[in-house]
Amino acid sequence: MSCLVVNRLMDIINQFVLSHREVVQSTKEAMVALQRRNPAAHPLLAIIQAGEDDSWLEINKKMAGKIELNITQICLAKECSEDEIVEELLRLNEDPKVHGIYLHLPPASLTSRVLNTLKPEKDIDGISDLNMGRLVRGDLSKVFVPPRASAVLDLLEKHDASSEGKTILLVGGEGSFGLTLQCLIEKNGMVALKSNWNSKSLQRQLMEADAVVLLGAEDMDVPPTWFRPGAVVIRCEPTLATDEHAAEMSSKSGLGDLTAAYRMQNVVHSYSRWLQEQQYQPWHLRTLKLQPLMPVPSDIEISRAQKPKPVDQLAEQIGLLPEELEAYGRSKAKVQLSLLNRLHAQPDGKYVLVAGITPTPLGEGKSTVTIGLVQALSAHLKLNSFACLRQPSQGPTFGFNLHLTGDIHAITAANNLVAAAIDARILHESTQSDKALFSRLVPSVSGVRKFSPIQISRLRRLGINKTEPASLTPQEVHTFVRLDLDPSKITWQRVVDTNDRFLRKITVGQASTEKGLIRETGFDIAVASEIMAILALADSLEDMKNRLARMVVGTSRSGQPVTAEDLGVSGALAVLMKDAIKPTLMQTLEGTPVFVHAGPFANIAHGNSSVLADKLALKLVGRDGFVVTEAGFGADIGMEKFFNIKCRASGLRPNVVVLVATVRALKMHGGGPNVSAGTPLPKEYIDENVDLVAGGCYSNLRKQIQIAHLFGMPVVVALNVFRTDTQAEIDLVCQIAKECGASDAVPCYHWAQGGRGSIELAQAVNEAANTPSNFQFLYHLEMPIVEKIRVIAQKVYGAEDIELSPEAKAKIDYYNQQGYGSLPICMAKTHLSLSHMPDKKGAPTGFVLPIRDVRASIGAGFIYPLVGTMSTMPGLPTRPCFYDIDLDPVTEEITGLF
Amino acid sequence: MSCLVVNRLMDIINQFVLSHREVVQSTKEAMVALQRRNPAAHPLLAIIQAGEDDSWLEINKKMAGKIELNITQICLAKECSEDEIVEELLRLNEDPKVHGIYLHLPPASLTSRVLNTLKPEKDIDGISDLNMGRLVRGDLSKVFVPPRASAVLDLLEKHDASSEGKTILLVGGEGSFGLTLQCLIEKNGMVALKSNWNSKSLQRQLMEADAVVLLGAEDMDVPPTWFRPGAVVIRCEPTLATDEHAAEMSSKSGLGDLTAAYRMQNVVHSYSRWLQEQQYQPWHLRTLKLQPLMPVPSDIEISRAQKPKPVDQLAEQIGLLPEELEAYGRSKAKVQLSLLNRLHAQPDGKYVLVAGITPTPLGEGKSTVTIGLVQALSAHLKLNSFACLRQPSQGPTFGFNLHLTGDIHAITAANNLVAAAIDARILHESTQSDKALFSRLVPSVSGVRKFSPIQISRLRRLGINKTEPASLTPQEVHTFVRLDLDPSKITWQRVVDTNDRFLRKITVGQASTEKGLIRETGFDIAVASEIMAILALADSLEDMKNRLARMVVGTSRSGQPVTAEDLGVSGALAVLMKDAIKPTLMQTLEGTPVFVHAGPFANIAHGNSSVLADKLALKLVGRDGFVVTEAGFGADIGMEKFFNIKCRASGLRPNVVVLVATVRALKMHGGGPNVSAGTPLPKEYIDENVDLVAGGCYSNLRKQIQIAHLFGMPVVVALNVFRTDTQAEIDLVCQIAKECGASDAVPCYHWAQGGRGSIELAQAVNEAANTPSNFQFLYHLEMPIVEKIRVIAQKVYGAEDIELSPEAKAKIDYYNQQGYGSLPICMAKTHLSLSHMPDKKGAPTGFVLPIRDVRASIGAGFIYPLVGTMSTMPGLPTRPCFYDIDLDPVTEEITGLF
Repeated sequence: MSCLVVNRLMDIINQFVLSHREVVQSTKEAMVALQRRNPAAHPLLAIIQAGEDDSWLEINKKMAGKIELNITQICLAKECSEDEIVEELLRLNEDPKVHGIYLHLPPASLTSRVLNTLKPEKDIDGISDLNMGRLVRGDLSKVFVPPRASAVLDLLEKHDASSEGKTILLVGGEGSFGLTLQCLIEKNGMVALKSNWNSKSLQRQLMEADAVVLLGAEDMDVPPTWFRPGAVVIRCEPTLATDEHAAEMSSKSGLGDLTAAYRMQNVVHSYSRWLQEQQYQPWHLRTLKLQPLMPVPSDIEISRAQKPKPVDQLAEQIGLLPEELEAYGRSKAKVQLSLLNRLHAQPDGKYVLVAGITPTPLGEGKSTVTIGLVQALSAHLKLNSFACLRQPSQGPTFGFNLHLTGDIHAITAANNLVAAAIDARILHESTQSDKALFSRLVPSVSGVRKFSPIQISRLRRLGINKTEPASLTPQEVHTFVRLDLDPSKITWQRVVDTNDRFLRKITVGQASTEKGLIRETGFDIAVASEIMAILALADSLEDMKNRLARMVVGTSRSGQPVTAEDLGVSGALAVLMKDAIKPTLMQTLEGTPVFVHAGPFANIAHGNSSVLADKLALKLVGRDGFVVTEAGFGADIGMEKFFNIKCRASGLRPNVVVLVATVRALKMHGGGPNVSAGTPLPKEYIDENVDLVAGGCYSNLRKQIQIAHLFGMPVVVALNVFRTDTQAEIDLVCQIAKECGASDAVPCYHWAQGGRGSIELAQAVNEAANTPSNFQFLYHLEMPIVEKIRVIAQKVYGAEDIELSPEAKAKIDYYNQQGYGSLPICMAKTHLSLSHMPDKKGAPTGFVLPIRDVRASIGAGFIYPLVGTMSTMPGLPTRPCFYDIDLDPVTEEITGLF
Repeated sequence: MSCLVVNRLMDIINQFVLSHREVVQSTKEAMVALQRRNPAAHPLLAIIQAGEDDSWLEINKKMAGKIELNITQICLAKECSEDEIVEELLRLNEDPKVHGIYLHLPPASLTSRVLNTLKPEKDIDGISDLNMGRLVRGDLSKVFVPPRASAVLDLLEKHDASSEGKTILLVGGEGSFGLTLQCLIEKNGMVALKSNWNSKSLQRQLMEADAVVLLGAEDMDVPPTWFRPGAVVIRCEPTLATDEHAAEMSSKSGLGDLTAAYRMQNVVHSYSRWLQEQQYQPWHLRTLKLQPLMPVPSDIEISRAQKPKPVDQLAEQIGLLPEELEAYGRSKAKVQLSLLNRLHAQPDGKYVLVAGITPTPLGEGKSTVTIGLVQALSAHLKLNSFACLRQPSQGPTFGFNLHLTGDIHAITAANNLVAAAIDARILHESTQSDKALFSRLVPSVSGVRKFSPIQISRLRRLGINKTEPASLTPQEVHTFVRLDLDPSKITWQRVVDTNDRFLRKITVGQASTEKGLIRETGFDIAVASEIMAILALADSLEDMKNRLARMVVGTSRSGQPVTAEDLGVSGALAVLMKDAIKPTLMQTLEGTPVFVHAGPFANIAHGNSSVLADKLALKLVGRDGFVVTEAGFGADIGMEKFFNIKCRASGLRPNVVVLVATVRALKMHGGGPNVSAGTPLPKEYIDENVDLVAGGCYSNLRKQIQIAHLFGMPVVVALNVFRTDTQAEIDLVCQIAKECGASDAVPCYHWAQGGRGSIELAQAVNEAANTPSNFQFLYHLEMPIVEKIRVIAQKVYGAEDIELSPEAKAKIDYYNQQGYGSLPICMAKTHLSLSHMPDKKGAPTGFVLPIRDVRASIGAGFIYPLVGTMSTMPGLPTRPCFYDIDLDPVTEEITGLF
């Protein structure tokens, strides 16, 4: 490129130098500012070149050096193929460390395929079709102005040729560069005229132009007299000189510098856009409209009538980056935990817990209230909101969620690997000498014996600080190789995600190959696995791995706890669980986001959705947004554990409790007859009966509100309205709830109306969330185990006192001795009463809570006292729902799901 | 738009009519031709409009009518929001029935977001940035020329203004349309000049132009005398008139017609491109380069060093459509079976089976030969090729594949649902009267009792042709509700995908809740489930569903088989398996495609990868391509079953057998000492020993070649070369193999060199595949069961005869009586010898094959005679590989996999 001002005495070279210095200076300043805010990152320009460095490239590298921009060069052979270029491009496109790609290639290599493989976000030369189109249409927000065009415009400006209305004549140049330039000139208010080299009127046109840009490679010499006196004449050569001579010419006269400077400026622009993208993005959620029908159709019909958004669209709308998403089919995806790092500086949103009063055996609709609430918040009040739900087991709900993203299958695989390892280890220890065990456990590989890291961990815990296998004494070998598990004290059960009641109690090892080592054991439903509880409580991959290693599977004959790490299996468990730890993104019927993640048992575990889903969601919704999460069963069960166990593990502090009640359950607590699944509802529950309702409100509802207040939380009561509820009943519940201290109490109609039916609830929650809360735990961890149990029994359940069985006392002593005394308590109690007696409704008092036994989930991190017998394996009814479930082999539609 | 020819007497209206009639005519002809070839499909134009139809729209609809193009109109409110437009656009983008989208909206609504949401493939008005950029740069292959620009060019041509070198002056029009037009004029060889309305030299420029196009909305009147006599003058108005008056004007003078006609032409173009896309697409596979290292590193190190292509890129390269892919993370995806419909007319590729000689217990590398072969074919010989592999179980290979896409988990869930249903049904039948069972199995819902479809199927099979529950007699009710399973004759086992030896034989039902209904049963490894065999043999969703329904789980006390359909569970099984039936697409280290799908046990099932994966792959590779599939164990096991069972089920006919041999295994067959896992290899296998090699070749290798010849197949022997093999040994094997009838025999070095090490094999396979084969089955299905067993024993194994135990005889009688006599035979025999005696190496003769027992997999569709005891549940060794497996919690990298 060269510039000539006809009839003006001026040092052209100096002009160039001046221009590019200004660009370098301003770009450098921009860099410094960006670096100050993001010291960890650094912009990087990737150059794909064919052959050695040439002088053009030298200029670019020099310019990058001035701006302190990093460069990576991919040097292909001079005759590289299109495939090779595309391969490198694809790699650089995907590399988050690269912010711009400069294709320093012969024009013939810049094929359509190459140009359009180049990711527009990294197209700092502005040569892709999309960039060109954006530029032509005039949407400059995402555009890269081709550096050469910037250079021309800069020169025009320097020579005062760029004022409004001035006429710029473009001569020659059939390619897209001419058009780009023409566009930019017009957008800058100048008049662009076009002519070409063999136009008869060229001389006249030249004479009339305020400035002339000569395009194209032609070495046409225009007599100086053809130009108007004072006109600026700019000669543009193609980007990449094909002969060395031209390149050198350009280099010598410093003409490439300005273009190179603008190229580097574009890299810094690109880097700055990338940094911007890494920041928190405000949502632009596109909600889906519902067409509610009367009568309300079945769940599966409703869900089939609504076409969900593709999950990548949903993800983009809530500010997730494409690389943070792992799709599973079209409508669900796992979200990477790296999001927590990216948004670590972003303030959390409001944290809402949905709990319930003591339910009937039919359930009172906490999950539907949760969904209705987020739909109302997001789609109707336009407040970002996220629901965090537990994944239902395939067993009882068979068919609802099927495999989803396989998390429960991963838990099953991990759980049962531990079980297989336990029994196989007992067998191997029973049939081999210390020496044989040692030589197999620490095998000689190419003549060398080495401990694996997991074995070194075990040695440490045994107090053997050696790393050289040969240095162990026979006694140390004995200690190391023998877990010496007491078969009668193995607490680890196998699991299966099916309601298989015949596996509740079984005898294993009856084949002759197992040499008579039979023992009694059993299967639990998969969600009852301690690994599920760990998944729900872990707050990072590392935390999960450590918890898995700590899991105690049984006791040795000498009374020592044996862990998953002792079995050598915990690293493998972490590998099996590495995808399960990522929450699964789905959506409500109105297209608002939901995390479905974990689903620990609410009896022997804490029954809450995962800490990680809540944490990711709290970052995504932003400061004024809401995360609505759900706790299993009544507030005495799920909510108490949410506060004392989950919030302790996560460090998160909730803002509001939503307490779900139904007229049906309140009537039951007010003295109504028994309710059970599969039998018709007694008439008390169908006809109006305000006395029963009032009785339930003044007993169970009041008590549950008081429980929330124990933790310093404001409570909004959500009355999930059924068809049979009367206005008088509805009004009464809301009135008494407020009387009993609820911040607000509102009826919800989400079942029939979707989010629209929960707007009042959403407003009440929004208001309550903006009042200050004084969250506090119910007990300190350092209190003795017995005291912790007593405080829960008395303050939460309303018991007079607790009574421990001898086993329970012995276990507590053992746990104290093993150093587990400061774990929180996870009560295993019926969910059908505040007491331990399922048929005591309302708010029983004056009872003594019997603690039958005490167990521990050391990996998950809690002690669980057993109050009565908990079934951890449901059974199938006579006519399971699978009778109606079918698949249309043509449409692939599922029928018969409820 | 109006056209004026200065000083020429011409009927302008007629000219327009003539033009648009030609366009309509040619478009209609194109339509007819497309319809003839694709009678099922039809092009569809979607119009998004704000408010009622206007006259512009009328013109377009009229024009669509003339071409017999279908239209769908989305009428938004006049003041619709950007979000609403975007929502409709996203829906139309995704709808495969829509081939073009016309945004008939006010200019203010055509925002950047709207324009760039519009899918470029459906942008028949050519208004998206990408289309504009393509047009400007000159890549017209995928472009839509904006209809208005086509109309202008058409008029220029009609008036002879479009010849090379003619000068066309564009006046006004700052928008992108002017630039588009300028571009197109230049590309057509004319000279485009630009001017604007207030240019001082406008009059002179007008006088000099051969044609003038007046752009922009200005109602500027240019005096006719300013134009050159004979010049064509075209006046362009914006696409959408904002006042009714202008629209009517255009309508009356027929000016919009030509634009509308070109718009419809673009829809037909789009439709034709879509049809083209639906056709078979030639591959443009981008293979990945390997950097083989010496010494060869571990598998996990090799695989980690190579970055796989994103699976959507791989899919596109092999001609899959985006909608046929369901991603699971970034590097694996399920492929939809609809592909078989789309490509049903496409001829299949060549079908290659990889089998082996009788292996040592260490395995001889059939899978690695398969991978090496496809890498050589695809990446080096540039012949499309696909490998179809079985999915390894998580149990024995723990860690290799982990969950993959969850197929084995789905099988486990389905298998164990059947098991739970069996025991629960026995319990319910034992505790309830006929009446109670009936009222629960056919419950009254809102007062109505109805059989579910699966119950009606059972009634049919019982010969009860009634559909009204109340009409059943007490005897019919009894027959219907009682499966009356004999607990001692239940053949269905539970499964788990872990090597859990203690579950081989167990007693279930020992909890008091199961009322003493204890029984002995056991768990198999998940891949041994009959459902896995069904998955591998099913050739459609419907076929799979039918096979699942037919599965026999046990026998009633009266001797009748009880099926999964009798249990009411088969529809639910199909739902659980609906994703598992789709093969999983992955890639080799060189970036060539692989299907991983199914993995039936090679003993009690047929041990071959899935029929569906092979079928999909055969369509994808195309006529000259190759599908390489693998059969488990020696040719006597996997290959025999591949031919007699799998090929019978699929109807596919193979072209070549590749028989994998190793010097190690040949030495063993030649009389070398025993080889076993975990102990050092005897020196015979490390040092050169041509005698042992020759012995093995003349016994086992020769026999295995002969087996393939029984089926009429050409054989290529692939010698998988190990580091310790000497050149003399290698040469000897190849020489003897050819002597014994192999078409060719070549050494393979894929283990160290990847595909490059298998080029010779690929060439040999390509050659053999092009010789005609005479495939034939070994037996007819109508032969008696005993004869089928005998023919396999004698011809394949080399036995003298067979000898049936009394149980085997009784079972065969029973199966004949139940109508299962014409099923193929799936021998359950050791893979370590051609005989039933694992230690008889080489090619034993003179033995009598004992048939201990006979069983049947009725759903999978075969009878399996047991020759010896088969373990269906492996155990863990003293030091399972999990000791070394770990996960780095920061990088998420897995360590310790082999």
